[in-house]
Amino acid sequence: MKRILLTIAYDGTNYCGWQKQKMPMVPTVEAEVEKASQRLFQDSSLECIGASRTDTGVHALGQRAVLDVTTTIPTEKIPLAIRGYLPKDIVVTKAEEVPMEFHPRYDCVKKTYQYRILNTEYQNPLLRNYTEWIAKKLDILSMNQAAKHLIGTHDFKAFCAAGSSTKTTVRTIFECSVIKNGEEVLILVTGDGFLYNMVRIITGTLIDVGKGKLSPEDIPSILADRDRTKAGKTAGAQGLTLMRIYYDSSRNSLT
Amino acid sequence: MKRILLTIAYDGTNYCGWQKQKMPMVPTVEAEVEKASQRLFQDSSLECIGASRTDTGVHALGQRAVLDVTTTIPTEKIPLAIRGYLPKDIVVTKAEEVPMEFHPRYDCVKKTYQYRILNTEYQNPLLRNYTEWIAKKLDILSMNQAAKHLIGTHDFKAFCAAGSSTKTTVRTIFECSVIKNGEEVLILVTGDGFLYNMVRIITGTLIDVGKGKLSPEDIPSILADRDRTKAGKTAGAQGLTLMRIYYDSSRNSLT
Repeated sequence: MKRILLTIAYDGTNYCGWQKQKMPMVPTVEAEVEKASQRLFQDSSLECIGASRTDTGVHALGQRAVLDVTTTIPTEKIPLAIRGYLPKDIVVTKAEEVPMEFHPRYDCVKKTYQYRILNTEYQNPLLRNYTEWIAKKLDILSMNQAAKHLIGTHDFKAFCAAGSSTKTTVRTIFECSVIKNGEEVLILVTGDGFLYNMVRIITGTLIDVGKGKLSPEDIPSILADRDRTKAGKTAGAQGLTLMRIYYDSSRNSLT
Repeated sequence: MKRILLTIAYDGTNYCGWQKQKMPMVPTVEAEVEKASQRLFQDSSLECIGASRTDTGVHALGQRAVLDVTTTIPTEKIPLAIRGYLPKDIVVTKAEEVPMEFHPRYDCVKKTYQYRILNTEYQNPLLRNYTEWIAKKLDILSMNQAAKHLIGTHDFKAFCAAGSSTKTTVRTIFECSVIKNGEEVLILVTGDGFLYNMVRIITGTLIDVGKGKLSPEDIPSILADRDRTKAGKTAGAQGLTLMRIYYDSSRNSLT
């Protein structure tokens, strides 16, 4: 028996998020990965534990999940071997052996999300499932100034979807930057953890700054007020991609 | 009555190409644009004439089509006005008035297609409908050398799908270049017209060059032999995008 850590990329468009649902008819990425693993390893009791619960329509290039398997398939061959059992919108890009005590969620030290905004006069239908389309020209400089105020350890209650229950709304943002990339505006956020809808609310707030509805200097008081209604709208799920999950490489030699 | 030239962008994934089919249940982009126009202009006899017949799964950012309409809607407002009648994967990005004798197909002087290749070890599921995925590292320099041999006026019979009937297989390629763009390799081809599957066969042939299966110096003899079996495979439809259709701007002040 060994514990295998998978890196998984998926197009979330046609899934009700990552996490397996009690209703077996609800398509989720985790259910597909688990089913494919059960078939590959011929073990119907095999369970898959993911690192991050992405929402409906959210994509991933660097989701992580573990499986405990007994197999003669060499670990590095697993991405290729599982391919035939997975739908085309889910791809395992890496497999590595980890210690049996490794946990993909508890051992995570930080995560990076990317939010893609298409900032053009007309919608591009090829990007409709992967970007939030904003016709009004965004002020990238102001958005970056606003983003800087989010870096650090803060109470992000104003950036948390109402009704979600969590012990603390304090999180640490290590990086938050806004980059112009051709017709797209990319928001990259790295933090030790994220509240429900946090990156999408940060994005909606930065879009308001980019449109001139809010000023960068409004961010500290939005944080201080801890009031969800002061922050911007929740940007669409389709623009969000989970890019990378980081583990403490000194502890278990993971990349 | 005025003739309106539309510029249209679409995701071809869910359509059986541009051209309207006799079977009304076959989804085509032209049928959707025509239906939307009939509803917007309240004229059930309205017909739409497109510039280029794209195949199943092929995309467009710069398709063109004309409509003859009697309307009080200002021409520049048509893209916004038609939006509510179109599915999300079709977007009208421009409308301009043209002379009544203008024909979108016969007046076309050149067209540009882009073919996107994803050249990475693993497939990226977010790009699966928009790129051809090639795992083996492509030699861009050789591909460019091969592409240069295609520029000019040649008999492209070797680059035409078998069984297609056309008066002549001579075409002029004005530009053919291969560009590395991050993890993607882009092939840009501009010509006065294209045979059936021509850009996709050019792409398949350039991929063979990039893999080292063919050398750039093989291209002149492939052209000279006029034998489809000497050229490469037809690359997948999903990587192809019709980028732009050019008209003689001196004649009718079109962009």
